[in-house]
Amino acid sequence: MPNKRVALQKQIHEWIRLHREEGTDFLQNLVKIPSTQGNEQRAQFLIADKLLELALEVDLWEPVGEALASHPYFCSPRHQFTGSPNVVGVLKGVGGGRSLLLNGHMDVVPEGNRAQWNDDPYSGQVVDGKLYGRGATDMKGGNVSLLLAIEAIQSIGIKLKGDVIFESVIEEESGGAGTLAAIVKGYKADAALIPEPTNMRIFPKQQGSMWFRIAVKGRSAHGGTRYEGVSAIEKSMIVIQHIRELEVERNARITDPLYANNPIPIPINIGVIHGGNWPSSVADLVTLEGRMGVAPAETLDSAKEEMHQWVARLSEKDPWFEAHPPSVEWFGAQWVPGNVDPDHAFMQVLMAQYRAVKKEEPVIEASPWGTDGGLLTQIGETPCIVFGPGITQVAHYPNEHIELERVFEVAEIVALTIVEWCGCEGVEE
Amino acid sequence: MPNKRVALQKQIHEWIRLHREEGTDFLQNLVKIPSTQGNEQRAQFLIADKLLELALEVDLWEPVGEALASHPYFCSPRHQFTGSPNVVGVLKGVGGGRSLLLNGHMDVVPEGNRAQWNDDPYSGQVVDGKLYGRGATDMKGGNVSLLLAIEAIQSIGIKLKGDVIFESVIEEESGGAGTLAAIVKGYKADAALIPEPTNMRIFPKQQGSMWFRIAVKGRSAHGGTRYEGVSAIEKSMIVIQHIRELEVERNARITDPLYANNPIPIPINIGVIHGGNWPSSVADLVTLEGRMGVAPAETLDSAKEEMHQWVARLSEKDPWFEAHPPSVEWFGAQWVPGNVDPDHAFMQVLMAQYRAVKKEEPVIEASPWGTDGGLLTQIGETPCIVFGPGITQVAHYPNEHIELERVFEVAEIVALTIVEWCGCEGVEE
Repeated sequence: MPNKRVALQKQIHEWIRLHREEGTDFLQNLVKIPSTQGNEQRAQFLIADKLLELALEVDLWEPVGEALASHPYFCSPRHQFTGSPNVVGVLKGVGGGRSLLLNGHMDVVPEGNRAQWNDDPYSGQVVDGKLYGRGATDMKGGNVSLLLAIEAIQSIGIKLKGDVIFESVIEEESGGAGTLAAIVKGYKADAALIPEPTNMRIFPKQQGSMWFRIAVKGRSAHGGTRYEGVSAIEKSMIVIQHIRELEVERNARITDPLYANNPIPIPINIGVIHGGNWPSSVADLVTLEGRMGVAPAETLDSAKEEMHQWVARLSEKDPWFEAHPPSVEWFGAQWVPGNVDPDHAFMQVLMAQYRAVKKEEPVIEASPWGTDGGLLTQIGETPCIVFGPGITQVAHYPNEHIELERVFEVAEIVALTIVEWCGCEGVEE
Repeated sequence: MPNKRVALQKQIHEWIRLHREEGTDFLQNLVKIPSTQGNEQRAQFLIADKLLELALEVDLWEPVGEALASHPYFCSPRHQFTGSPNVVGVLKGVGGGRSLLLNGHMDVVPEGNRAQWNDDPYSGQVVDGKLYGRGATDMKGGNVSLLLAIEAIQSIGIKLKGDVIFESVIEEESGGAGTLAAIVKGYKADAALIPEPTNMRIFPKQQGSMWFRIAVKGRSAHGGTRYEGVSAIEKSMIVIQHIRELEVERNARITDPLYANNPIPIPINIGVIHGGNWPSSVADLVTLEGRMGVAPAETLDSAKEEMHQWVARLSEKDPWFEAHPPSVEWFGAQWVPGNVDPDHAFMQVLMAQYRAVKKEEPVIEASPWGTDGGLLTQIGETPCIVFGPGITQVAHYPNEHIELERVFEVAEIVALTIVEWCGCEGVEE
């Protein structure tokens, strides 16, 4: 009955077309809530309400407990999540189909310097088809695509065979403790999709990353006799150059064609430098903080080990480092890399629905940044693809926005993907 | 009457030998007062008392007024000196002799991290002939040498021909506003001596210095796509290297034999670096702060101009700097370089007294740091030599101390120098 499938596609397309205003309103309401870390509650209650309205089984909880806190992949600046609930909604299938996990984070990064915004950072204002505000692109727009897809399916009365698990999580922006909490609680599926802002590209692989801090020692002296000291600032220049060479070496190993368009697939970015405390003293300590990209096929541990061994080799460049080896520590956030075979069955289903809706070939790449997809794939036993409507370039920036047209396109692609992946009664496999 | 001179020398030697305990007590009392910037009053009152006791004309005032504040060489982090008086004592000669200005600063740098001190930083404790405490070496020990010299002359009843002007000033550690205030008030003489901690070396020339701040711009981007940004940290490495080359060029011009033992006569020290604010962002701004050494024969303005022109040439090394030239500003403290001819008559007198007391040739060098001597020489029309009992290496450091033996030796050398330079009744020229 291919005609039945075509009819369903039309129904879904039509339902979404007719509910654009409601979708836009809901996204506006979400963006108007500044759900930065620690302030996610109101937005999550809004999501929970919507899930109840859609007749899903709702699970709302504040992550807590030893199993989470002691998990080797637990990474968060906090250990208390009071006022920061996760929300999960489960749409049970009738059985006999594949399950799908749909995951999006509700936390947003702070708005930064308000002077750089043309409007209130949480306005949700729509201008020329674009909806503005912190989180519009990263990633409340993607979350609304997911909810619209589920609502379309429920409204049309499609009976899915496999389960759909919708997760609205906290803490993605600071290391994934929200998604990890859902994994620890037992949520998993045969495949997962996260609609992070990919510019409509499909990322079966995602770069992981983690933060490091390197302390470079010197020896203090008066600036007028600086030759009596050893400048940690000058030594840090050697360290920075050395790290640059590690980046070159690591990237030379990346041959994955998904990274063909990326000049540095797994960058090592030194983003912060602090050293010295007096203009006329020789600095005796410089601290470097940065982000190390981790390849999809790597583990965080192997990348860490390579950094430690590389830094230990600094003494080959300058004997100073023999007696004064820089220390390397890992702190703050980390994102596990994601790595799903581009030939995975779920990729094929997703790509086919993309073609059906967009009438063009999807762009398949590996993401230059980490998402919660790495945790789902590597820890949660749920192969995860990242694909979403947001604009990569404006994520975390002033005047963040999203094109509403993309939100509705992704809603349609996701709805079709759910139907194809989970299967539904009345439509042949 | 050479015998009369020899007898006088013996008297001075003997008087100082017999008053070592009083000298030590007085230095202890001074060191026990933490006379950091803004807290000089108690120590200055103690000095004023001593000067009155020695029958000098005492002038104690808090620097103030338009003539000081608008002076082109006024340099201070503050414009109010309430509670921070200067003290000057004048010992009028009977006439017909050369005048001498003796200058020492009463401000001390903060004690820093107390955990690095073996004892209370203001203990004044004496162990094995060394007196400990912040300011002992830099430069209350030298000031006590001056006062002992004057006291010896007064006690013995020597009638000087020329005037002796003793100045206990504030603010040397932050740019010399105390000495400048005394200059503006009209104090000057035929020569000057400052007993800064020189390890008993004689410095007819002193390196000047001033603080600069260079802002290096980049362009922000996410660390995962760092190639989309321009790292201000990487650009700052080019700037640091460029400044290092300026240092080489400037020092290649220094041929003064007084700098023969100094590997870098006029260093440029970059002491502070700050840049970036997020490990996984490309830094868009790095700030460098440093100290530029200024040669005795240079002016501050010509050195500033050379730095500006040099930094402007960065675009030859990297086209980025064409559209994004680093800015250079001058801030905080500055010290005018000092430059007295080693053949100056006062040098000859001082060296002769050194030989008489120490029975060895003095070491003549150029100082690797600035003092108030530059202001006296260049602005105050008073050629100034720097020579003192303190230990260069412990100035500004934890466990600062001075060898008391040196304090008494310098007292004796200064007393003889006063007699020889100013002349006295009953001793032939």
